[in-house]
Amino acid sequence: MKFSVIVTLKKDVLDPQGKVVSQTLKNMGIKNLNLVRQGKFFEIDIDETDPIKAENQVRVMSEKLLSNQIIEDFKISRAK
Amino acid sequence: MKFSVIVTLKKDVLDPQGKVVSQTLKNMGIKNLNLVRQGKFFEIDIDETDPIKAENQVRVMSEKLLSNQIIEDFKISRAK
Repeated sequence: MKFSVIVTLKKDVLDPQGKVVSQTLKNMGIKNLNLVRQGKFFEIDIDETDPIKAENQVRVMSEKLLSNQIIEDFKISRAK
Repeated sequence: MKFSVIVTLKKDVLDPQGKVVSQTLKNMGIKNLNLVRQGKFFEIDIDETDPIKAENQVRVMSEKLLSNQIIEDFKISRAK
C-alpha cells in the first residue's frame, strides 16, 4: 500500500530555502511571485493490506522520523 | 493563486536519501517496509487570477529551476 507524506514548515517558522528559491525566481524575471515555501516529500510503500493499520504505521513514521513536530507539520495521503 | 509542486526522482534514478530513511525506519522496528523515496515539495503563491496563465508560469518555474529534468519529474497541482 502506497502513501505520500508531505512535510512542511509551520506557518510562523522562517524558511530560508524557500526564500532563496523565491529570490532566484524573481531574478529570473518572474515579477508576480508572492511566496515560495519548500518542504519535503516522501513516497512510502508498505506491505500491509489493511488501510487503517497501514495509515497508522505511516503516521508513526512521520511523527518519529520524517518530521520534527516542533517546527513542522505533515500530511499523509493514500497514493494510487 | 496557490500551487503545490512535487519533484521526485525518476524511477530508475538511485535515491540514497530515501535509502537512508528506509534503513533507519527498519532499524526502528518497522519490518514491512517495501520502499521509501524522497522528493521535494514547493508551495508557490503567485499574483495571477487566470488559472491557465498561472499554471503555465508555475510550469516554467518547475522546468527552469525547481527540477532537473534529466533525473527528476514534477507534478503541479492547484492548492486550495
